[in-house]
Amino acid sequence: MKLSRVLIYGMGLMGGSLALAIREKFSDAEITAVVRSEKSKNTIRTKNLSDQFFLESEFTSPNWNQYDLVVFSTPVASILKIIPTLPKSGNTIFIDLGSTKETIVSAVESHYADTTHHYISTHPMCGSEQVGPDAAVFDLYVDKLCILTSPKSASNTSLESVRLFWEKIGSWTMEMDSKSHDETLAYLSHLPHVISTLLVNVAGANPATKKEIAGSSKPITGGGFRDMSRIAGSNPDMWISIFKENQVFLRKSIDDLIKQLLEFRDLFGSNGSFEEDKIRKIWELALVNKEEIRKIK
Amino acid sequence: MKLSRVLIYGMGLMGGSLALAIREKFSDAEITAVVRSEKSKNTIRTKNLSDQFFLESEFTSPNWNQYDLVVFSTPVASILKIIPTLPKSGNTIFIDLGSTKETIVSAVESHYADTTHHYISTHPMCGSEQVGPDAAVFDLYVDKLCILTSPKSASNTSLESVRLFWEKIGSWTMEMDSKSHDETLAYLSHLPHVISTLLVNVAGANPATKKEIAGSSKPITGGGFRDMSRIAGSNPDMWISIFKENQVFLRKSIDDLIKQLLEFRDLFGSNGSFEEDKIRKIWELALVNKEEIRKIK
Repeated sequence: MKLSRVLIYGMGLMGGSLALAIREKFSDAEITAVVRSEKSKNTIRTKNLSDQFFLESEFTSPNWNQYDLVVFSTPVASILKIIPTLPKSGNTIFIDLGSTKETIVSAVESHYADTTHHYISTHPMCGSEQVGPDAAVFDLYVDKLCILTSPKSASNTSLESVRLFWEKIGSWTMEMDSKSHDETLAYLSHLPHVISTLLVNVAGANPATKKEIAGSSKPITGGGFRDMSRIAGSNPDMWISIFKENQVFLRKSIDDLIKQLLEFRDLFGSNGSFEEDKIRKIWELALVNKEEIRKIK
Repeated sequence: MKLSRVLIYGMGLMGGSLALAIREKFSDAEITAVVRSEKSKNTIRTKNLSDQFFLESEFTSPNWNQYDLVVFSTPVASILKIIPTLPKSGNTIFIDLGSTKETIVSAVESHYADTTHHYISTHPMCGSEQVGPDAAVFDLYVDKLCILTSPKSASNTSLESVRLFWEKIGSWTMEMDSKSHDETLAYLSHLPHVISTLLVNVAGANPATKKEIAGSSKPITGGGFRDMSRIAGSNPDMWISIFKENQVFLRKSIDDLIKQLLEFRDLFGSNGSFEEDKIRKIWELALVNKEEIRKIK
């Protein structure tokens, strides 16, 4: 894949880390960044994340075709606004790093219709509680999964180029259609973030717990709570955007969880019953599911 | 604290790790272990976890008073059976490592009534997904919280000795009454284990997710799911015992979570509403709670 000029549109943790990875793996590539704030500009300059940079407000009517690769790493809502303005000719490959796929893919499909194009939607499955280009690291994408979603009329060669690009960056790839992506991610990523966030709020709202916590200078928690709360409350802007895009599947996953919580609660009933065997079966099933989902050999 | 003879009754991960820590910190102490299986006996011999060992079946009518310290590290249900048989005189200090406190403390209080005694219930907040004496490590308790619960009529000197014992082992201590302990732990430990377990089952039951997982040789998960699922399905015997002891508070914590899940789900309603501000407030509150609970400065 020829990579002389790359545009990274949106340079937070994800875009900034990709810039560092491109510096390492495609050292000849000239990187242009589009950012929202002057503060980001300074960080980008200090960390040498790009060769040129523009504020979003300065970057009007761009000549997209001058880039070999354009990467959209802003929230999905702003990607959706840009897609209808993209050129229908030229060889520029467009990708995004969006965490949901259905709205992006349907915007791409309705923009290009039957015209062959080079827009491949991608989702690198990584991140951090930290945000902004300050937190960028060169190996964020190494050994991580990047999901590739090919809209209708996308050329096969661009899909192949995007796959090679991500593999050179260090990720491993798999293809998913947009609906399967959004449903699967609701269960494997969005729901876990909701649960982690609500867990700390449920614990924080219990008076006895609150009192004991206030009376201790150190955390009254074991490793379980620590792990379960790591992602709580992180990056509200990003999550609000994801939830908005993926409401239907997220609601479904929450409903499934509520159903299982109700069933579980009723195994040790107010009538003093305690269905040990059923609890054991739930625990055993969880071990099987955990091994399968996490591919623990 | 004089520690010539210690009995560790039940030698799994917790008891075995405590034996290793006692070997290091009280090197003169002679350790006797009571175990359930021949298999454990072999591990204990190989790892030199005790100087003497008995099968539970061989350890009938013991002379408790020959020990300076007796540690019960079996499930709570079996501790409850032993408490009524303990001597009401002598200087032996009794502790347990039980994960719930109300049933133990009330058994101790009803056994000793107004007689001054040396039974202090303790709860070292640590563990692992692994079980058994094979998994024992000498530093399991280092820098971990050990909660001390003093039943009525316990002597102050024994409370003080037990505190010093755990601090020498390397833990930090705080006191809690049994009710606060069980309620706080429901929210900070028991509920997280339930959630982690049900999360993998909810994800594993979704057909789209299941299909994508089956089609991939590597995990389709980011760090969030990995952290949130670490404790899923671990140690069913222990958790069944804990849930049985702490049903009332666990039910309450599950009900609180279901309430918050329902409220959250309704923020992006089937009518297309999407209450961004309220989601943001929930996320901001979670950050505050997380910092307070985890004592993040």
